[in-house]
Amino acid sequence: MEDGLEILPVRGIGHIVAGDDLAELITAAAPWLADGDVLVVTSKIVSKAEGRLVEVPADGPEREQARREVLAGETARVVARRGPTTIVQTHHGFVMAAAGIDASNVDKTHLVLLPSDPDASARQLRADFRARGLDVGVIISDTMGRAWRNGLTDVALGAAGIEPIRDHRGETDPYGNELEITQMAVIDELAAAGELVKGKCDQVPVAVVRGYPRAGVRDSDGASVLLRDAGSDMFSLGTAEARALGLREAAQLPDGALPGRPVDPAAVDRAAATVAGLLSPALTVTAAEVVDGSGATAALHLTTRDTTPPGLMRLGADAHRLRAALAAESIVTLSLPHEDGLRLELSGN
Amino acid sequence: MEDGLEILPVRGIGHIVAGDDLAELITAAAPWLADGDVLVVTSKIVSKAEGRLVEVPADGPEREQARREVLAGETARVVARRGPTTIVQTHHGFVMAAAGIDASNVDKTHLVLLPSDPDASARQLRADFRARGLDVGVIISDTMGRAWRNGLTDVALGAAGIEPIRDHRGETDPYGNELEITQMAVIDELAAAGELVKGKCDQVPVAVVRGYPRAGVRDSDGASVLLRDAGSDMFSLGTAEARALGLREAAQLPDGALPGRPVDPAAVDRAAATVAGLLSPALTVTAAEVVDGSGATAALHLTTRDTTPPGLMRLGADAHRLRAALAAESIVTLSLPHEDGLRLELSGN
Repeated sequence: MEDGLEILPVRGIGHIVAGDDLAELITAAAPWLADGDVLVVTSKIVSKAEGRLVEVPADGPEREQARREVLAGETARVVARRGPTTIVQTHHGFVMAAAGIDASNVDKTHLVLLPSDPDASARQLRADFRARGLDVGVIISDTMGRAWRNGLTDVALGAAGIEPIRDHRGETDPYGNELEITQMAVIDELAAAGELVKGKCDQVPVAVVRGYPRAGVRDSDGASVLLRDAGSDMFSLGTAEARALGLREAAQLPDGALPGRPVDPAAVDRAAATVAGLLSPALTVTAAEVVDGSGATAALHLTTRDTTPPGLMRLGADAHRLRAALAAESIVTLSLPHEDGLRLELSGN
Repeated sequence: MEDGLEILPVRGIGHIVAGDDLAELITAAAPWLADGDVLVVTSKIVSKAEGRLVEVPADGPEREQARREVLAGETARVVARRGPTTIVQTHHGFVMAAAGIDASNVDKTHLVLLPSDPDASARQLRADFRARGLDVGVIISDTMGRAWRNGLTDVALGAAGIEPIRDHRGETDPYGNELEITQMAVIDELAAAGELVKGKCDQVPVAVVRGYPRAGVRDSDGASVLLRDAGSDMFSLGTAEARALGLREAAQLPDGALPGRPVDPAAVDRAAATVAGLLSPALTVTAAEVVDGSGATAALHLTTRDTTPPGLMRLGADAHRLRAALAAESIVTLSLPHEDGLRLELSGN
């Protein structure tokens, strides 16, 4: 049999209260802990030991109200809502349902918040083990949902003494191809492995991974390197929220100086196709000469054969349709009255 | 020491070609396999054994073109694009970068596709082991990115002989709370655990999980239960794509019969706030009586003091701004000429 990993449950830790010394309780429950082990510690017992609980009414609308207030306090921004589910980004940067606030495994008058700094908690716990002569890695884990896949998995909220990412960049496979898949989130995989021997109800809040190589560990490493900031995340908002954002942007299209970037004619054609059949039959759209000053790199003239008041109002609405369609193609516009119609000035954004 | 799991690498399997008998190769490499083990098998060797390779030019623009065509063939819908990255939903339902098509660990003239039916592949492989007298669970795994978190993890594409989800519904914790976190995607966690002993380059395409309870297994279970359909997914589109969708919807607001659902006055107020300061100072918006027929449950009259042609065009554009803002609040509208201005009829959607 080949050498591999062992994933071992730590039983008998019991209820944790604020001020408990987790390193002491864990070593008492697992006297077999050894140098090189990686501990996967459920965030809830870290939160409890750190006193990250808030008192709430046990039931009724007061409880719901209190819960909403606690959620608002933990929320940096709302990512998506549907029915009773609110997915937020926490102040730490985690994207989680209900900010990871949990009402399970605690009495009904309290809610458990995430540790305020899970990487710091992991570093402290690792230091506490070191003080007992044990050199272990520590991962603080919690359960999260994910996009696109049903079911939940455990991931790492905090880590110390373990490389968060195994980086294959620069490696080549046996065929000489440079690897495309480069960065494995190994602490999330270790947290998931630990969950397999933990239980939700049977008081196994710690798992030990034995045999995982911890080469190259720097104490500066933590789980926060796994947080993708909203700006570089292709899924920073829920689909419904982002769609509504687009609708609001269409409502708020500004009329101001344009950035003067080139306009892709194919993008203008796609925008025209978007509104095809929706514009007034009386409308004529023609490409117009660009005049310096506004920052436009292209322009369109909109005129109508129907110069009655309803016809002119329709021209205004049609121009706004076209502006929204152009915005969907990343073309910014400026609308100006021009002769008997409107002039749309265009720029890339 | 408590009883736990072992995660064991299977080394020495070597290169796989179409038609290879994986059960034979795996049992030869791991004669220590035992009943109850769960095998985590990298999808690539399943694809290779099943001949799921396509020939492509080794380099140049022809290779890129061929790659794009292969991707299009594997794509059911595009979820998000940014720069060189295309995230799609495959015909299987997986949401993956480049549809899981892989150019690593294969010679430069081929691309490896995902198995066409990974659950069927897992069932077949499990049956092949059974024919050799071994009762094992089989997970076919691959590496995926995810929203919100950097780094990749392995998840299950296919499974047989193992419950895909561990369901805690109905369980209560020691405090009497019913569990809120109910469904753990254990096959994804097993795939992640397996990845920890596999390598990207060193030819360890199979891991064995020993000691995981496989109670309650039905042969009908497969990894496809983990696929969330786009309709119930809050992240079915990338943020930029969904925002563009909203902009296009604003360009295409229809004028047709309304569904006759009640309108939330607070939503109208939010829409008005969206366009506050953007509408013409000459514009007046007043709540109007609802007339039967259109399906409207509320109506607004828009009039302007500026009845010059530019003023009337501005009224039309402002009405469209307001319609887009109302659409962002899930209010559908119908725009009709009315006296000297426009009448917007409103309904919930």
